[in-house]
Amino acid sequence: MSQAFTPLLDATRVEQPIRDGLPMSAFGGFVVESIAPGVAQVRLGYRDWMLRPGGTLAGPVLMMAADAAMYAVILAHVGEQLLAVTSNLNIHFLSKPKPADVLAEGRLLRLGKRLAVCEVLLRSAGDDDSLIAHVTGSYALPAKPPSS
Amino acid sequence: MSQAFTPLLDATRVEQPIRDGLPMSAFGGFVVESIAPGVAQVRLGYRDWMLRPGGTLAGPVLMMAADAAMYAVILAHVGEQLLAVTSNLNIHFLSKPKPADVLAEGRLLRLGKRLAVCEVLLRSAGDDDSLIAHVTGSYALPAKPPSS
Amino acid sequence: MSQAFTPLLDATRVEQPIRDGLPMSAFGGFVVESIAPGVAQVRLGYRDWMLRPGGTLAGPVLMMAADAAMYAVILAHVGEQLLAVTSNLNIHFLSKPKPADVLAEGRLLRLGKRLAVCEVLLRSAGDDDSLIAHVTGSYALPAKPPSS
Amino acid sequence: MSQAFTPLLDATRVEQPIRDGLPMSAFGGFVVESIAPGVAQVRLGYRDWMLRPGGTLAGPVLMMAADAAMYAVILAHVGEQLLAVTSNLNIHFLSKPKPADVLAEGRLLRLGKRLAVCEVLLRSAGDDDSLIAHVTGSYALPAKPPSS
Repeated sequence: MSQAFTPLLDATRVEQPIRDGLPMSAFGGFVVESIAPGVAQVRLGYRDWMLRPGGTLAGPVLMMAADAAMYAVILAHVGEQLLAVTSNLNIHFLSKPKPADVLAEGRLLRLGKRLAVCEVLLRSAGDDDSLIAHVTGSYALPAKPPSS
Repeated sequence: MSQAFTPLLDATRVEQPIRDGLPMSAFGGFVVESIAPGVAQVRLGYRDWMLRPGGTLAGPVLMMAADAAMYAVILAHVGEQLLAVTSNLNIHFLSKPKPADVLAEGRLLRLGKRLAVCEVLLRSAGDDDSLIAHVTGSYALPAKPPSS
Repeated sequence: MSQAFTPLLDATRVEQPIRDGLPMSAFGGFVVESIAPGVAQVRLGYRDWMLRPGGTLAGPVLMMAADAAMYAVILAHVGEQLLAVTSNLNIHFLSKPKPADVLAEGRLLRLGKRLAVCEVLLRSAGDDDSLIAHVTGSYALPAKPPSS
Repeated sequence: MSQAFTPLLDATRVEQPIRDGLPMSAFGGFVVESIAPGVAQVRLGYRDWMLRPGGTLAGPVLMMAADAAMYAVILAHVGEQLLAVTSNLNIHFLSKPKPADVLAEGRLLRLGKRLAVCEVLLRSAGDDDSLIAHVTGSYALPAKPPSS
């Protein structure tokens, strides 16, 4: 990556606004595990309602985890006063996700003034070298107020 | 569209397997409203947990509705014995969705032997001429058993 | 669509900047056939170099036509002084395109102040009811100068 | 990645079918620089016709390079007898590409029996640590003949 990314917020500061903005998190455990330059690691705790027939996690559960990871990495780097809005999300499902926590690693590909582009690598807890899905997405960033 | 699409299942037959496969539907009302050639209309009932700060529906709620509409239109046209699996989903968020039922219209763009491609138009109930999101996606279709 | 779209430029005014910005058009005929509210129709003339083995058009030829149609519909509605830049393009290939002109119909899904979202329906000339590809994409729009 | 990828063809064997299948390569230099497990590096040589006003490369040039890199990495791993067809391509443009050769690194995310999923990292020659675009895409793989 060409850009040097510098986080402004740590995992604890990032987690609460995401919990507030991801109401479904009320139905599952959600943790921002770490923030590093250009990267956020989040975990979505497994719950039985996430299963679909065949014993794999439902697709929307992975999309929810990916959306949270994108939001986490952006929030960490632009600061919590800004209201970023998902513009686009593209997911490829790669292998059947077993009933386990979902680990989502959000990475900034570009952080512009008005648009941020991310990728998210999704894995199952306990199977760290296998991707279950790959996501790219963009977020529209609000204009900063003139005085800030 | 060039292909002539002929539904094999009606809305009632399509709805139950989707409820089973979309466990989050336990937390919200979900109805397959109609099936027509190449088209499925589904409704995801509004619940308070779907809201995010600012009073709009969370993005994953729209993805869940879109995924269900894609699944409905495919299931209706390939028959319930087949286990279709989402391969890819791409969503563009177009306007802020107000707190209301989500109406998702799934349309087949192509139904091949191994891959189906769909688009989904998402609207808010009571505001029928406004798109809140647009989705395209593809489903991998299983090989038919030799005897069928 | 909820938004009422009003074109500012006609097909003739839109065509020249696209020819300038799509240098490959030097290798193929390119025409903006019509502009209507929210819609632009463009045609990319068939040339032998567009073929790939098997006698179908190469994928990048369809992407080039789609990109031109997106640019045409946006330019027509924001005016030529603005320098829109493609942010994202997503294409699903639906059927094998025969050796013929490509007709691309660009439609605005949303025209915001900073981002425009479009879809493009791609067909082969002479086979008007069959889609060969479906595209969605977004364009970043520059900030207007303060005086305008 | 969980899958262990083993190339079947080297760069020389991969290059010719891509040149044949990418007719626009006649207008620009195209080289498969290397093949490694799960990865293909390709280079699209800069030509003046690739420029758009403002002095940057036209978007379709990057899509062409990405499509070639996806095709290269798949061909290298499934063997040249198979006719893979692009099913879907999604590109995010990240920074303005200067007038220089385009380096595209195609990586397999999943190689299934019927579908391959890749990502492509695009850079400008001489600026190796900066991404100009990011692509994901899927290819439909033909059924193998029963005897093979």
